[in-house]
Amino acid sequence: MNRDRQAIETLRILAVEQIAKAKSGHPGIALGAAPIIHLLYSKIMNISPKHHQWINRDRFVMSAGHGSALLYSVLYLAGYGLGIDDLKEFRQFGSKTPGHPEIHTTPGVDATTGPLGQGIAMAVGMTIAETYLGAKFNRSDLNLFDHRTYVLCGDGDLQEGVAQEAMSLAGHLGLNKLIVLYDSNDIQLDGKVANANSESVSEKLPAMGWNHILVEDGEDLNDLEKAVGQAQLSNKPTIIEVKTIIGRGSSVANTPKAHGSPLPAEEVAKMRAEFGGEPFSVPNEILDFYQESIIEAGETKYESWMKLKEVYAAKYHREAEQLDGMISNDYPVDFMRLLNFEESYSKATRVSGGDILNVLQTVHPGLIGGSADLASSTKVKGIDGDFSKTNRTGRNLNFGVREHSMAAIANGIALHQGLRPFVSGFFVFSDYMKPAIRLSALMDLPVIYVFTHDSIAVGEDGPTHQPVEQLTMLRSIPNMNVIRPADANETLTAWEVALETKTNPVALVLTRQDVPTVTNRKLSAHLKQGAYVLSPERRHLDGIIMASGSEVKLALDAQNRLFEDGIDVRVVSVPSMFLFDRQNEKYRESVLPKQVKARLAIEMSEASHYYKYLGTDGSLMNIKGFGQSSPAGKLIEAMGFYVENVVSVFKEGYKNSQK
Amino acid sequence: MNRDRQAIETLRILAVEQIAKAKSGHPGIALGAAPIIHLLYSKIMNISPKHHQWINRDRFVMSAGHGSALLYSVLYLAGYGLGIDDLKEFRQFGSKTPGHPEIHTTPGVDATTGPLGQGIAMAVGMTIAETYLGAKFNRSDLNLFDHRTYVLCGDGDLQEGVAQEAMSLAGHLGLNKLIVLYDSNDIQLDGKVANANSESVSEKLPAMGWNHILVEDGEDLNDLEKAVGQAQLSNKPTIIEVKTIIGRGSSVANTPKAHGSPLPAEEVAKMRAEFGGEPFSVPNEILDFYQESIIEAGETKYESWMKLKEVYAAKYHREAEQLDGMISNDYPVDFMRLLNFEESYSKATRVSGGDILNVLQTVHPGLIGGSADLASSTKVKGIDGDFSKTNRTGRNLNFGVREHSMAAIANGIALHQGLRPFVSGFFVFSDYMKPAIRLSALMDLPVIYVFTHDSIAVGEDGPTHQPVEQLTMLRSIPNMNVIRPADANETLTAWEVALETKTNPVALVLTRQDVPTVTNRKLSAHLKQGAYVLSPERRHLDGIIMASGSEVKLALDAQNRLFEDGIDVRVVSVPSMFLFDRQNEKYRESVLPKQVKARLAIEMSEASHYYKYLGTDGSLMNIKGFGQSSPAGKLIEAMGFYVENVVSVFKEGYKNSQK
Repeated sequence: MNRDRQAIETLRILAVEQIAKAKSGHPGIALGAAPIIHLLYSKIMNISPKHHQWINRDRFVMSAGHGSALLYSVLYLAGYGLGIDDLKEFRQFGSKTPGHPEIHTTPGVDATTGPLGQGIAMAVGMTIAETYLGAKFNRSDLNLFDHRTYVLCGDGDLQEGVAQEAMSLAGHLGLNKLIVLYDSNDIQLDGKVANANSESVSEKLPAMGWNHILVEDGEDLNDLEKAVGQAQLSNKPTIIEVKTIIGRGSSVANTPKAHGSPLPAEEVAKMRAEFGGEPFSVPNEILDFYQESIIEAGETKYESWMKLKEVYAAKYHREAEQLDGMISNDYPVDFMRLLNFEESYSKATRVSGGDILNVLQTVHPGLIGGSADLASSTKVKGIDGDFSKTNRTGRNLNFGVREHSMAAIANGIALHQGLRPFVSGFFVFSDYMKPAIRLSALMDLPVIYVFTHDSIAVGEDGPTHQPVEQLTMLRSIPNMNVIRPADANETLTAWEVALETKTNPVALVLTRQDVPTVTNRKLSAHLKQGAYVLSPERRHLDGIIMASGSEVKLALDAQNRLFEDGIDVRVVSVPSMFLFDRQNEKYRESVLPKQVKARLAIEMSEASHYYKYLGTDGSLMNIKGFGQSSPAGKLIEAMGFYVENVVSVFKEGYKNSQK
Repeated sequence: MNRDRQAIETLRILAVEQIAKAKSGHPGIALGAAPIIHLLYSKIMNISPKHHQWINRDRFVMSAGHGSALLYSVLYLAGYGLGIDDLKEFRQFGSKTPGHPEIHTTPGVDATTGPLGQGIAMAVGMTIAETYLGAKFNRSDLNLFDHRTYVLCGDGDLQEGVAQEAMSLAGHLGLNKLIVLYDSNDIQLDGKVANANSESVSEKLPAMGWNHILVEDGEDLNDLEKAVGQAQLSNKPTIIEVKTIIGRGSSVANTPKAHGSPLPAEEVAKMRAEFGGEPFSVPNEILDFYQESIIEAGETKYESWMKLKEVYAAKYHREAEQLDGMISNDYPVDFMRLLNFEESYSKATRVSGGDILNVLQTVHPGLIGGSADLASSTKVKGIDGDFSKTNRTGRNLNFGVREHSMAAIANGIALHQGLRPFVSGFFVFSDYMKPAIRLSALMDLPVIYVFTHDSIAVGEDGPTHQPVEQLTMLRSIPNMNVIRPADANETLTAWEVALETKTNPVALVLTRQDVPTVTNRKLSAHLKQGAYVLSPERRHLDGIIMASGSEVKLALDAQNRLFEDGIDVRVVSVPSMFLFDRQNEKYRESVLPKQVKARLAIEMSEASHYYKYLGTDGSLMNIKGFGQSSPAGKLIEAMGFYVENVVSVFKEGYKNSQK
């Protein structure tokens, strides 16, 4: 057995040993795709395990995230900091080797994967980031950015809509630094691929602007290497379809059983016996080989890049400084001087939001993004033209009607580092992005989602376009900051929060319709605390009305009317429950004092999260069903969102609370 | 101008007049695609406007739902029951002509559309239903089911992942009764299609098992008709790419401005002047033509089908009776005799759910469905083999890893009538289906969603596979019944509820892990009330513990321990908040009496909807962040879901409530 073969068998045995010990995992892909992983890590990728955050490293995305055990095997051998004991702790509580790869848990993992299709789309985002940064910062003699993004995906990945959307866009954009290795084994969980899919990948992908290269025997390293070399020279993204055998060499090879169940312990023991050595042991020559070919070679690559960067910094001082700020995501913007909205300003928050973003982009070089074919409605558009085959420094990403992959691509851009992605669409279509938004939150990525047309006030377009339950959906995601500002000033502070944010996604939820200015710069600064007393009671605190977004004005009007009727309430603006729930108890109590039982929350949404602030006697004025097609004003009134009704609902609750 | 041209111009002028009067709408597609609509309704489709629910009618799905004004124009002319006054009320509150087509609002609308991509996927579902029912019920001489499904889609539709998934499956299944007319005008909202997409449709679709036919001039009715004729003869689904001009004939023709803004009133007046007649008027000869070619011809078609059905009923009595039951969705199943779970039964609810479904399918002929490549895990699989090119009566739909289109296809099957679709996946992947689930709810479709692996108890697969916020997401959708049963008995009742349901989707949320039997048949029947006292207090009601699903057992154990410590609580099982909230106040008060302040809800999810039952003194034991990869038992304990902790959290709240 030559060294490559021995290395491949090492990856295989380590993977199935991890899975067998955990009694949980996916041996099929580990056995089938080991040669691909070996080749990528030992011969192809420019990586430096000791500097696993090196920004110009080649990226690797295990889109088939269930192949984690295979990935951990190679990360261990390649010196990323995993020890053999970590492999023994595969899938255990608190271990560095979780069931699917997670970026914060395991050094060397470039993307958290598992939900199929997402990895491919994130890789597209990484490639966009590399391409943009290269075009912006590289100089004729000094290529700071010059890396590729490699993906390992399976049959299931390619069936996902999000992957198809992203690949379509990658083809359109000619992202030639993207190379997808497709572990094509003709088997998926429920049986043969042929039972669920009969596309011709070799014809379909070229029709989408991709190269397709077939490697007929996934064990043939020469062919594999040749294919990758060919891909590297192309001006298009490439998919290398590698024919492999799922569960290769095991008793369940070439069957769906190989996918997700551990091999029997005896079978693994037998495989180990044939390979030689103790369980979880690795032949010294393999350790040496990886040490040399990856760890030491990587050190050299990294150091020569650092030297390059020094030369660059000397020659292009300003650019280097800007780049450092962008990489560290530390780019201060003086919001107080940026913009000022007059008291008389009364435009939709999507409009003020768009104005703010346009100014921000001129002072923050890291901002890049766009909309899913709705820029003219959401007012969210990148500057410097469309990013395209011919304009690699365009900061507008024209995603087309591809909401889901838009969000996943934004994740990839954020993962790459160096850029601050923002994406946009109608709020109701956040539904299409949910799986990727969840991954933003899980990966602590500060992706900025700008959602406009935020309630039934969408009006004529009707219930399919009127969000109702989307605020609840997003508020329920852990680590997700949902901000629904009341006016232009709160929108400005919301953008400030978004830019300052480093470890969670932020959703700005903006109106379609005009809203008056109800705060000022000083008041709206309290948005950072999530909720605040916007208009205090005048003499005695009889009750509290909470509201967010366009309903804040309604709350203020109701406050006045109630005062005329002898009831003295305060109005609390609640732009972000996420931020408010993170304040200390003293602050929260100062805004919503416990002894005040008469409480009303007003929000044109399903709004269930308000219940936690309402207690037994509070009431919620929300939207109970779907909306309907109608001019907005009429519909809002029909749904009860007018002053008289607010006053009457509050009084009802007030009466009950006095009992 | 010949009659066809005059009819087409009539559709155009009526559409832009509607839009101009409403000052809202999408003239671009109406002007561009009018010939396609005219041809379909007047020459191609087998429809009978007076019997718009006729089960063997050709279906038409306006996937580009923003083309509603065009659709309403033809529905008016074709005698579906819209009057000219309805067109004048386009997009107004309470009108029959909402912004996007809605099935319950407008006779003749076969699917509620608007969110792009969904229409194509629903049409795939309709075609599956027709194909299955035809194969099952047609006899050599008597073709009860013999209709096609036509779709009008635009460039945006085809960029959506959900459409690509569904089209991939349609090609795989060889659904030749599906004909998609692609309004190909090279323009989308944010600019030229070429700015966002450069796929070759003519190469891509054939690679996916479709015919592609190009009609170079969308005004050429002969070519259009020939293309449809060719499509009708094919053994594959067909996409007819029709080159059109967006906003044809208007001042904004061939520009994105034509898409979504009304033409100026003066321009519409000028168009009307050129056409002749008063606004909203139609030449008599056109009215006559539609009367004859559609309304009367349709009457004849319908009557001859009814005769066919009579002959069929006489010859195939049993089949006809079965079919009637299936069409009326009135198929009683005697659940009391169906299955019995012993007290000692303790399997995962996914397993009991699968066992129940398998029995149900043998007695309920309308059930059809499957899983997104997870049948072996979710235990949800249709019987009679895979529905495929060679087995048209298979009741298992092998969706592949295409969650989003799976849900949309189920909508299409439900829309068709005659079948009861069920679909399945891991609960966390309900995220992928959200946009289509929302449409199930909006359309009142009784689609059955079976979601398994319902909490962090998924264990080793880690946070990407562990649902946390999905219960909240689904509970927040209006008209959606989310049921999380505690054991096999509640699962049985849940399936009973699902089958009895006629006007809303139902999600059954089932465990991966084993759960003991904690109810019996008599108790679990109360699931129909949504929440019920599973284990009452013994002497004096000191407090209430609520729980759902696998946490009910934990609540019962805590109840015992608390009683030992002198605190007498009741345990309320809360399988469905949707059902509980629909009970009268008396019942709700009997389950959760107001005066009982010490309340605890336990659920391994974000669980925010419990706040409405908790009041100021209640506590919620929920999941606060994401899960992590670990054997389930260990993780559940780390998250605090063990008896001692429940007892201690309850006592804390109890103490506070006594103050």
